[in-house]
Amino acid sequence: MTTAPARTTTVPVPTQSIYQTRVADYWNAEENPVNLELGRIDDLYHHHYGIGEADRSVLEEPDPELRKERITSELHRLEHAQAELLASHLGPLTPADRVFDAGCGRGGGSIVANLRHGCHADGVTISAKQCDFANEMARKRGVDDKVRYHHRNMLDTGFETGAYAASWNNESTMYVELELLFAEHARLLRRGGRYVTVTGCYNDTYGRASREVSLINAHYICDIHPRSEYFRSMAKNRLVPVHVEDLTAATIPYWELRKQADHLVTGIEDAFLDAYRNGSFQYLLIVADRV
Amino acid sequence: MTTAPARTTTVPVPTQSIYQTRVADYWNAEENPVNLELGRIDDLYHHHYGIGEADRSVLEEPDPELRKERITSELHRLEHAQAELLASHLGPLTPADRVFDAGCGRGGGSIVANLRHGCHADGVTISAKQCDFANEMARKRGVDDKVRYHHRNMLDTGFETGAYAASWNNESTMYVELELLFAEHARLLRRGGRYVTVTGCYNDTYGRASREVSLINAHYICDIHPRSEYFRSMAKNRLVPVHVEDLTAATIPYWELRKQADHLVTGIEDAFLDAYRNGSFQYLLIVADRV
Amino acid sequence: MTTAPARTTTVPVPTQSIYQTRVADYWNAEENPVNLELGRIDDLYHHHYGIGEADRSVLEEPDPELRKERITSELHRLEHAQAELLASHLGPLTPADRVFDAGCGRGGGSIVANLRHGCHADGVTISAKQCDFANEMARKRGVDDKVRYHHRNMLDTGFETGAYAASWNNESTMYVELELLFAEHARLLRRGGRYVTVTGCYNDTYGRASREVSLINAHYICDIHPRSEYFRSMAKNRLVPVHVEDLTAATIPYWELRKQADHLVTGIEDAFLDAYRNGSFQYLLIVADRV
Amino acid sequence: MTTAPARTTTVPVPTQSIYQTRVADYWNAEENPVNLELGRIDDLYHHHYGIGEADRSVLEEPDPELRKERITSELHRLEHAQAELLASHLGPLTPADRVFDAGCGRGGGSIVANLRHGCHADGVTISAKQCDFANEMARKRGVDDKVRYHHRNMLDTGFETGAYAASWNNESTMYVELELLFAEHARLLRRGGRYVTVTGCYNDTYGRASREVSLINAHYICDIHPRSEYFRSMAKNRLVPVHVEDLTAATIPYWELRKQADHLVTGIEDAFLDAYRNGSFQYLLIVADRV
Amino acid sequence: MTTAPARTTTVPVPTQSIYQTRVADYWNAEENPVNLELGRIDDLYHHHYGIGEADRSVLEEPDPELRKERITSELHRLEHAQAELLASHLGPLTPADRVFDAGCGRGGGSIVANLRHGCHADGVTISAKQCDFANEMARKRGVDDKVRYHHRNMLDTGFETGAYAASWNNESTMYVELELLFAEHARLLRRGGRYVTVTGCYNDTYGRASREVSLINAHYICDIHPRSEYFRSMAKNRLVPVHVEDLTAATIPYWELRKQADHLVTGIEDAFLDAYRNGSFQYLLIVADRV
Amino acid sequence: MTTAPARTTTVPVPTQSIYQTRVADYWNAEENPVNLELGRIDDLYHHHYGIGEADRSVLEEPDPELRKERITSELHRLEHAQAELLASHLGPLTPADRVFDAGCGRGGGSIVANLRHGCHADGVTISAKQCDFANEMARKRGVDDKVRYHHRNMLDTGFETGAYAASWNNESTMYVELELLFAEHARLLRRGGRYVTVTGCYNDTYGRASREVSLINAHYICDIHPRSEYFRSMAKNRLVPVHVEDLTAATIPYWELRKQADHLVTGIEDAFLDAYRNGSFQYLLIVADRV
Repeated sequence: MTTAPARTTTVPVPTQSIYQTRVADYWNAEENPVNLELGRIDDLYHHHYGIGEADRSVLEEPDPELRKERITSELHRLEHAQAELLASHLGPLTPADRVFDAGCGRGGGSIVANLRHGCHADGVTISAKQCDFANEMARKRGVDDKVRYHHRNMLDTGFETGAYAASWNNESTMYVELELLFAEHARLLRRGGRYVTVTGCYNDTYGRASREVSLINAHYICDIHPRSEYFRSMAKNRLVPVHVEDLTAATIPYWELRKQADHLVTGIEDAFLDAYRNGSFQYLLIVADRV
Repeated sequence: MTTAPARTTTVPVPTQSIYQTRVADYWNAEENPVNLELGRIDDLYHHHYGIGEADRSVLEEPDPELRKERITSELHRLEHAQAELLASHLGPLTPADRVFDAGCGRGGGSIVANLRHGCHADGVTISAKQCDFANEMARKRGVDDKVRYHHRNMLDTGFETGAYAASWNNESTMYVELELLFAEHARLLRRGGRYVTVTGCYNDTYGRASREVSLINAHYICDIHPRSEYFRSMAKNRLVPVHVEDLTAATIPYWELRKQADHLVTGIEDAFLDAYRNGSFQYLLIVADRV
Repeated sequence: MTTAPARTTTVPVPTQSIYQTRVADYWNAEENPVNLELGRIDDLYHHHYGIGEADRSVLEEPDPELRKERITSELHRLEHAQAELLASHLGPLTPADRVFDAGCGRGGGSIVANLRHGCHADGVTISAKQCDFANEMARKRGVDDKVRYHHRNMLDTGFETGAYAASWNNESTMYVELELLFAEHARLLRRGGRYVTVTGCYNDTYGRASREVSLINAHYICDIHPRSEYFRSMAKNRLVPVHVEDLTAATIPYWELRKQADHLVTGIEDAFLDAYRNGSFQYLLIVADRV
Repeated sequence: MTTAPARTTTVPVPTQSIYQTRVADYWNAEENPVNLELGRIDDLYHHHYGIGEADRSVLEEPDPELRKERITSELHRLEHAQAELLASHLGPLTPADRVFDAGCGRGGGSIVANLRHGCHADGVTISAKQCDFANEMARKRGVDDKVRYHHRNMLDTGFETGAYAASWNNESTMYVELELLFAEHARLLRRGGRYVTVTGCYNDTYGRASREVSLINAHYICDIHPRSEYFRSMAKNRLVPVHVEDLTAATIPYWELRKQADHLVTGIEDAFLDAYRNGSFQYLLIVADRV
Repeated sequence: MTTAPARTTTVPVPTQSIYQTRVADYWNAEENPVNLELGRIDDLYHHHYGIGEADRSVLEEPDPELRKERITSELHRLEHAQAELLASHLGPLTPADRVFDAGCGRGGGSIVANLRHGCHADGVTISAKQCDFANEMARKRGVDDKVRYHHRNMLDTGFETGAYAASWNNESTMYVELELLFAEHARLLRRGGRYVTVTGCYNDTYGRASREVSLINAHYICDIHPRSEYFRSMAKNRLVPVHVEDLTAATIPYWELRKQADHLVTGIEDAFLDAYRNGSFQYLLIVADRV
Repeated sequence: MTTAPARTTTVPVPTQSIYQTRVADYWNAEENPVNLELGRIDDLYHHHYGIGEADRSVLEEPDPELRKERITSELHRLEHAQAELLASHLGPLTPADRVFDAGCGRGGGSIVANLRHGCHADGVTISAKQCDFANEMARKRGVDDKVRYHHRNMLDTGFETGAYAASWNNESTMYVELELLFAEHARLLRRGGRYVTVTGCYNDTYGRASREVSLINAHYICDIHPRSEYFRSMAKNRLVPVHVEDLTAATIPYWELRKQADHLVTGIEDAFLDAYRNGSFQYLLIVADRV
């Protein structure tokens, strides 16, 4: 019978702004089944969307409970595939290496990285509740000596300069100013270190943020950046892209399936589908090197 | 019996993006009483909000029709006060001077400037319907020799370099990229010319865009900028502020009154009031010189 | 009977340049009645000009000594009004808050802030003599536990990062490079902190520095910046204007009165009046937030 | 029996620098079999390398002449695969669209684009001889009404602003300054237009240019850019990446095969293979949108 | 008996600012013997200072009139040496080349360049009177077919892009904003063209502008730039230094001699000598290439 | 009988990149007679080229051994003249001052500075072997209390901020990124400190890097910068040029002599001579102040 370690939860994050407090409140209160139910399957709690072809036969399962279970399981498979894709781009890491998970939520991504590479991981979340939850999961798995979650501001972690071999944001860049974020990643990464993000961005080719993008912003209290802003801010912070991939088509099956999962929908599904389809929104993977 | 001049309406704007087409569609279709009813009073059609203390006694008018009429009239008085404030900052203009009204809507602002200074005015709107309407109003007033509206993109007007003594955006900057916008104003204004904007901006001191700001964006299909972006983009485009005024407190009475005007509300009133009150949103006047 | 605390005066400022040494020499030697006589009235020693309508009836006082006294008093009233205007923009401060007075001179501004908000104040001046004088005044008032003056370079204070709720320059920006100055303010202010300056700037709309502006520079060994430079440098240093006010008209009465005060004139009065009147010079208030 | 049209070859390029003259001299004189022999197969003359798995069985062909022929053919298949990959990223073009081929060499890329999309193409080369040759090929294919080659400087084409739906550089960016190049592409492309490049770049993660990269530079009189420079210059010129792919592994088979083709080697093969293998050099595809 | 050609003097310069009008007024009225007397010697009217060792024996000439004459002659020799130094850095020009003399004053520099290189010269001055005078001198010498003076703004000449092989400012940069000035030079110069300036600049190493520098500014209504500003602005405008030389020591003899020339002094001599000697001011030659 | 001090050689440089390891390997292995033979003459080991007129009579010396000796001696005289020229621009240093020799090689430059000014010197080299060698030489001369060599990365020395009165790179800038390099110099130099470099740079006026420049790069595993990059990076790092001199003509005699010294040639001589003569390459001295 363990308790949450005092060090990560009793020191409150010096939250920089009222906005960040509201975001923290949101995630402290959040209990969406689409996050909790999926995580329960294997104790890998993700807070992001999925990619890849969906097995839509789960929708035809006649038994109602089993149907729910199969849909949940299928969505979890897709979100896990996304986490694995991200982790596969972190570079050739060794167990001695350290990685930084910026906006770690309930901690699934750091576990995936640790399972794959054996590396040390430091996750950071602005939500004390997520942080406690994630540390509890790490203890349950017996990896709390290598995987730790911290209740901190990802823009100002206080972590050691140049100590990280890789770092990432999995759908967490839309809560912060990119220049400040990439400055912190650039500071933490060693020369030659790898940065990865999977993110929704609005498409400058379409124009400014569409109505659908604004609805998503209102839903999550976030502020989705234009695609251009990622490359401009990376260029200013010595993060040089080496692989960029538009995952929009790959994520639509996840959303189509989720839309039909009555026990999991949050109401934002149509905004995502419409935004992806009308070209105003993109689901993007960016892999960059710290030079 | 006049007809709309072919030159301003039959040449379609080379709309740069799908986004802009959607914005144009919105304004071509828009028939909100809060714009049309108020404009009908004196044929000054504004598309912006009001400032100043409201005479709330109009709410107590017992006669229902008269009550509506008095509320409408009071709101118009407030929006007109805003237009007059803006026009009062255009500098000492002469009848020979030319001014540029970027995002002119149904044209009220250009008329106000012409009435005050006797100057020539060129208004630009992306909506062909607004453009026709505005030109019709100018003809009705007999000022169509000096006040003209053009169905064009305000980022790329094709107007003559250095030909304008003053220019402005009255609540129309949130539809465009500020760097492109201010580059065009800087190109059009003569050295020493004056630029003025009244705009809603989100407050960087609060943090990123709040939920309320995103709801406003979704409502109008716009993309409200942070306050910082105005000053950064002006600094890059030789527009130097000389007067900046926070009109937030001055605009709240307008919204409180409008919220109680059942015949005029559009449903966005609470988002504005909440955003202004929680500090995430500001109603700002910026007056700058082209140097 | 106290003595000046060693810590603030015996450690010489690591003066960065010969220029700064000359400026320090100037202020160490300066004993203008317009600063000393006015300060003596209530022990609030300001080194800036005044604003507001002047009571010109003091000039008609028949008794010569009384006339001097009344003029002195009226000018002090005007300079104090300026200090109060500045202090009124420092934001809602609490007694626990700390403020930074950059270029504090003989210390009046920090006292005004402390009287108004009860806050801690750290003033910085390059003149050891001003610093001693100011600390003596704080002791006399019994606020030396909260208000301290330091003999340091305002560009490199050595104070704690993020420790200040507000900071200002009252007519002291013309001695330093603005980019270095605003970088130091941005470093010292906490997120959401407030920066205020009242300053003379030359007007880019007029063109380059006029002859009158150069005469003022020669008089004070200063280097007045163009207005544009303030906004450009703030934009680079996360200082976002929220209120900008042209105080030129408001300061002219002070100069007109001072010009007729034979016991106080320094000889620079006409240069100021001419510069304000020919449009080449402006007296500006800028209020900005640290974001 | 046609002759080269006067308009493209008799007007000499106003060559900006001695360097460019030397580059033009190089290509006017160049008659490498690896370019000419491969092109002869189907009159698609490329000046770039290949990608994809090579059929190495061609090396075991016992008949010497047939062996040469089969190797030549296989290498051409690989270089054509590269051209097709590039063309597949030009976006959904229509026959009415116009594309710009910057550094077109003997013209293969423009033909590929025309064959695939039916679009108009304007190729530009600094070599008069390549230009004549390419135009002759277009006539032979009967597409000289749609595909034209111009003897011009790709940094200063004189073509119409905003007239192009897509543009590209296929291994021709290393001869020019990227900021000037991308400024010209940004000028020529319409809003939403697509830019594509396949290029060798040196890898900032490795460090500065390796000895092998310098040997390649000396061989071709070119100046290979670091990867970072592409993204920095694009960010300054409104070109926003949407797809970035490291083709290094995919191009190695081409070089391994070519190295064993005695009738085609130019002597630079080992430098390429060493540079790719030691991590100092990358073969990169960048696809970007003009916003 | 010739008349001034209408084209250069009857079209008034569209003076951009009140400041520029004052500068033009100053030079229209200026009749300092130190400019006129020296020019009369050989009809080479310069408006700049001299360099090189002075023959101080002229001061000992007993005959008062002859003494004046010899001093005048010696000072002219020194100012001419400066003009020759500048002209010697314009590069290997041919008679077919065209050069641009920005701020030409009474025209001596363009004549020097023409005599030395046989080239065409276009001088520009904001003073109509200087322009007429200079054109008259060119006619007198019979070089008005190659050397022409224009009454224009050097920031906006309207001359042809890329048409000039060399250009310069001889002590005329302190009247204008350097970024605008160098942008115009960069526009006018062909690739590889040469830009030269001789200028007084204030020394950033010393600090901000000293009192002496401000007195010089007040005297000439100019605004002397810091040394750093030259290199920063050149870097932004593709002007790359190839030769920089501190001429301070070389110009002091000129000032020492001039100070003792009672018939020529203007009263500013001590400010120059003090500024040069206390290290706050430098006399600098910068030679740069347009790349 | 002393040994190399452990502190400078046993702590390996945290080499930032594979590239830097290769450069270190090169210099650890390097034993070119042109460096060693020349140094042996007076134990001043330089790793740079010479300037000034050569005494070509040494080539006519009939005795073969004496001929070698005289040539060696003459080349050493020329390289020493270069070192003296550089040292003469370090400013008026006192024995209490500290200087920083970035890329010190076998240490000659620091000794020259110490001999001339009596100052403390810290040399930095990425090669452990050079570092040991240089420290040994300092001991031999008995100046190891004032002159020390460190096995470190010149981009990240760990030395004290503002502690240096002067610093330089003598032909060592081509191994590093200039922005990082100048940022480190700017950090180390006190306000008003002096920076000097002698370097080969490629000439932007000519165009991109010529074939000869690339051959030099390949020879030394370096990456020669364009001239423009020096001035752009200095402008960003508060290093302001005060003296710039093209030493190309002055260094050609050294190369002409060296080319005929069969016992010293390394094979790169023709590349240098060709590059200097065709205008693609320049030997440049830049002297700048830290402001």
